[in-house]
Amino acid sequence: MVENLSENNAKASQLTTDCQHPTYRNTAPNLEPILGKAFPVLDHGFVRVVDYMGDDGSIVQAARVSYGTGTRKVREDRGLIRYLLRHRHTTPFEMCEIKFHIKLPIFVARQWIRHRTANVNEHSARYSVLDQEFYVPDRAQMAIQSAQNRQGRGALISDDTAEVYRETLRNNAETAFTSYQQMIAGAEEDTEPNGLTRELARIGLPVSTYTQWYWKIDLHNLFHFLKLRLDPHAQYEIRVYAETMATIVEQWVPMAYEAFRDYSLHAATLSRMEVVALQSLLEGSPPAWESWGLSPREVREFCERFQLDPTTGRRIGEVK
Amino acid sequence: MVENLSENNAKASQLTTDCQHPTYRNTAPNLEPILGKAFPVLDHGFVRVVDYMGDDGSIVQAARVSYGTGTRKVREDRGLIRYLLRHRHTTPFEMCEIKFHIKLPIFVARQWIRHRTANVNEHSARYSVLDQEFYVPDRAQMAIQSAQNRQGRGALISDDTAEVYRETLRNNAETAFTSYQQMIAGAEEDTEPNGLTRELARIGLPVSTYTQWYWKIDLHNLFHFLKLRLDPHAQYEIRVYAETMATIVEQWVPMAYEAFRDYSLHAATLSRMEVVALQSLLEGSPPAWESWGLSPREVREFCERFQLDPTTGRRIGEVK
Amino acid sequence: MVENLSENNAKASQLTTDCQHPTYRNTAPNLEPILGKAFPVLDHGFVRVVDYMGDDGSIVQAARVSYGTGTRKVREDRGLIRYLLRHRHTTPFEMCEIKFHIKLPIFVARQWIRHRTANVNEHSARYSVLDQEFYVPDRAQMAIQSAQNRQGRGALISDDTAEVYRETLRNNAETAFTSYQQMIAGAEEDTEPNGLTRELARIGLPVSTYTQWYWKIDLHNLFHFLKLRLDPHAQYEIRVYAETMATIVEQWVPMAYEAFRDYSLHAATLSRMEVVALQSLLEGSPPAWESWGLSPREVREFCERFQLDPTTGRRIGEVK
Amino acid sequence: MVENLSENNAKASQLTTDCQHPTYRNTAPNLEPILGKAFPVLDHGFVRVVDYMGDDGSIVQAARVSYGTGTRKVREDRGLIRYLLRHRHTTPFEMCEIKFHIKLPIFVARQWIRHRTANVNEHSARYSVLDQEFYVPDRAQMAIQSAQNRQGRGALISDDTAEVYRETLRNNAETAFTSYQQMIAGAEEDTEPNGLTRELARIGLPVSTYTQWYWKIDLHNLFHFLKLRLDPHAQYEIRVYAETMATIVEQWVPMAYEAFRDYSLHAATLSRMEVVALQSLLEGSPPAWESWGLSPREVREFCERFQLDPTTGRRIGEVK
Repeated sequence: MVENLSENNAKASQLTTDCQHPTYRNTAPNLEPILGKAFPVLDHGFVRVVDYMGDDGSIVQAARVSYGTGTRKVREDRGLIRYLLRHRHTTPFEMCEIKFHIKLPIFVARQWIRHRTANVNEHSARYSVLDQEFYVPDRAQMAIQSAQNRQGRGALISDDTAEVYRETLRNNAETAFTSYQQMIAGAEEDTEPNGLTRELARIGLPVSTYTQWYWKIDLHNLFHFLKLRLDPHAQYEIRVYAETMATIVEQWVPMAYEAFRDYSLHAATLSRMEVVALQSLLEGSPPAWESWGLSPREVREFCERFQLDPTTGRRIGEVK
Repeated sequence: MVENLSENNAKASQLTTDCQHPTYRNTAPNLEPILGKAFPVLDHGFVRVVDYMGDDGSIVQAARVSYGTGTRKVREDRGLIRYLLRHRHTTPFEMCEIKFHIKLPIFVARQWIRHRTANVNEHSARYSVLDQEFYVPDRAQMAIQSAQNRQGRGALISDDTAEVYRETLRNNAETAFTSYQQMIAGAEEDTEPNGLTRELARIGLPVSTYTQWYWKIDLHNLFHFLKLRLDPHAQYEIRVYAETMATIVEQWVPMAYEAFRDYSLHAATLSRMEVVALQSLLEGSPPAWESWGLSPREVREFCERFQLDPTTGRRIGEVK
Repeated sequence: MVENLSENNAKASQLTTDCQHPTYRNTAPNLEPILGKAFPVLDHGFVRVVDYMGDDGSIVQAARVSYGTGTRKVREDRGLIRYLLRHRHTTPFEMCEIKFHIKLPIFVARQWIRHRTANVNEHSARYSVLDQEFYVPDRAQMAIQSAQNRQGRGALISDDTAEVYRETLRNNAETAFTSYQQMIAGAEEDTEPNGLTRELARIGLPVSTYTQWYWKIDLHNLFHFLKLRLDPHAQYEIRVYAETMATIVEQWVPMAYEAFRDYSLHAATLSRMEVVALQSLLEGSPPAWESWGLSPREVREFCERFQLDPTTGRRIGEVK
Repeated sequence: MVENLSENNAKASQLTTDCQHPTYRNTAPNLEPILGKAFPVLDHGFVRVVDYMGDDGSIVQAARVSYGTGTRKVREDRGLIRYLLRHRHTTPFEMCEIKFHIKLPIFVARQWIRHRTANVNEHSARYSVLDQEFYVPDRAQMAIQSAQNRQGRGALISDDTAEVYRETLRNNAETAFTSYQQMIAGAEEDTEPNGLTRELARIGLPVSTYTQWYWKIDLHNLFHFLKLRLDPHAQYEIRVYAETMATIVEQWVPMAYEAFRDYSLHAATLSRMEVVALQSLLEGSPPAWESWGLSPREVREFCERFQLDPTTGRRIGEVK
């Protein structure tokens, strides 16, 4: 848990109710104890659950309205939830809703906000002065551009250079914040007030500056967010938020999360051509990648997934 | 409260938790006692709240995250909520969510579903056999087509004719249901099973047939729904649902509902031309409707709204 | 092409421009000749393209804005489009838009409208009197309820019974329409006008009644619609619309449609457990379905997909 | 028109078709000549129309499908469009679509993206190196924080201080860009490649950095965007984009834009209490603000709108 929240965050925390009330609503017993608790992410960020609606039972309940008397035989909640997710019957998962309070760097917020299906209240730098908090990557994140992946990271940078870069990022951000605060405060020599309006003073701050928001989303769309942002190709700095949220969701709706993991997160999508390839390889046919319609890149990824030797089409290490 | 729910509804009701649990979440004390209670609407329909998230305090809480330390002076929740709604700062209202279980005729459902911002789980007539329940308008609803309003109702129809029409609607619906049930059951003479598949047997049922769904929406979009469906031009059969929901929402978020009533539901939108007209009339100028750019229909509606004599531009009944 | 459109449709057709204009916009040469042409679906329905925006080139153009100078190496449009769809980079596909005019039975419209990402203008039965047109299934559609699939169709019904059912559906619909028209016209004996208001008279009409709408959607969401509605589990009566639209989309954006077919429509999603199973089977291991975590139903579907013998885990017909 | 587009923009411009093609689609004759033309905004930004679908006639066409034969009397397109907008019949306006290519500072993009109903393809700083372009406010924008408006600007800052601030913003941004380029290029002394991955190097860039995107939206939602962003309370730097877009939209759909201006942009919304107040004032009653339920702030705004003296409730300057 985060110990030292900034003044703003502390204030926000106080808004969360400190005592329990009775309710007739479905409650998620494992989520209740962590309501309002801030889970730290990156150097100054956090994720905390502010509110939620529904639980695994709400998914089942909604599905039963859809199927009416027709589902008498589906006795087991877990089985029904897995069936729904496996067959992409997504509407019952929309019946659960969760609201997070998140503190995150602006460049992460810019990726995050592309998910249009959530409700958002973000801290406004037009109304309020921003705290001097910005993200500096850990030494372990200081990597070169990937050679294979145009958007990813490659090998680590040497210690000395990494430290130079981190120092550069830190110094530039501190300079920007100092200027920001000075422009807002105004110059002393003038007789008239001359502090620059907040909405302009902030334009020199780096995209590593932390912002915060309330972010509310239904479970179906949250699963979609998690699938995309838990992916190894997602930028590390948003992936760590997704990982924290995934552990929270697992506490909230354990059956639905298990089903999501099995049928979506760790599922594999095979193209029409890959299905043909698999059917042939299972028959013992030699690989005919080109006539199956697979591009060289697709062959490489396909063989990696199933640990196949591209030449023989057989499992690597398999005794012939 | 509804006494005799059909088998389906009774089953659904049982899914609602019967006992209270402690929660750290915001609770709406006036909404809790009516959770799961079915409020009857029309001859067989109902509205009941299944779940909710947030209360008036959640709106304030979200607004304070947006404004940060900048709102220290806004001490009063009611004032802040009214300010937000008056200035169309809508995102804090999206932080509250409510889920209804609704039973409604298909033709009402078809109007309702046009609101795309909600989550829906509807009873499926492909999976389940429909109960024999259809809407027959009250005698008080049997009206002729309005002469002024191409989509509305005019004067009441005479008792005898109204009864003939109601009988016609009832008889045709009963015939359709009898056929439906017979086709599903199948004809006896055949040696092979010959009950028609449910998804086809139902196509002869009238749009007055009742369906039911779970419908979940945030407060901002619910206000939008209520504004449109509480309007006198909305069809009576959907308006009565909106009226029932409005009384529920008033229990849930009393401050927000009051603000909605004052700044949205009973607000008036004046066109650019009507603003000019009002400014001139307040100055005591004689009406110049045409040069102000108002069409005859707009003049009529404008004068009705402010109870003005179109000729003098002064209040009707005003002593000159 | 449909020869005899009803009066309404003919009128709508006239609204489509009959002559060509020059434009600087991207044009889809294979789509232009069929703009405004009605493709018949079911007994009275149709699909026609009213307008469109963008083509295959617009997808590439949007992707290149995202990738900036970084994509110099991606020279080939087809390759880029396939890459985008394969990696679920969906936003460039949202840059194309298409608008259809569709005539369809109400029960199909009710399934269709659940896709919330489209824009819709539907014919209003509050404003206008409906034409007497309703859907009666072909003899080839008259099937019993499926034993395996709670929402699907099984074997065909015998000729005689099928004809009885079709006659029942037709007769009940005709009765409903006759009543509808009589109630709207009003009874003659009354001295006062007594035609029932349209918005109530129509509630006795069956859900097989045809309605029509303009339906506008972007290509990404259209692909999602097509994937769901071309699926064998979709109801036949909506599937035939999807099939007609698919042939149109193939004319509009041939590269994107081909990629959709290969990477989405005919793709297979394997669960986490199925990936494990495939890896083991490719190694030649004997099947261990239960320890791999597959339910009996999942085993059956998995074996069907890859034409495996559940006992041996080898291809059916394979020489051992 | 912008003369010197950067390399990226020039490339993007080339993607726009340079010659005309015949089409059966509705075309907007006044929009065609400016397709692909970049209208400059701020110091390095621009707005240009890339594509569009529909025109004023498309709105009428969609409305006529809804109203069917019921609208025979509505002969005039302009009248129908005004009627639709006045009565908030919004769906026909969703039938028109427009796609812009926009270059804008990141802090403006962050406000802009909150409109969730659009489709967006943004330049990715993970894939590509950003051009060194950042926004520095004009001297005329250098203002202090407003005393009345917590989010707005007040009086101008003196010339000397303004120049200091502008210099500060410029210098810090240039420093950040220099560091960015150096980190991406890597340090020379290392034997291994040590250029920092693009997705991290960019986190030190200021939110004044320019980005660009394709942004596609339907006319109804574009009107909503324009209403909010043309408002005097919108930040100047986004308002100037809205102003440029408004002039473009007026060329595209002149009738719809005129109706938008009259019934939405320059319309006034009166609260329930303000309607009561107006009715009373029109009757000649003395002001009773408090008993009418208006707060002091509301009284002030109300009197400003209608140029009333708060004490007498009569027009300022009116001869008594």
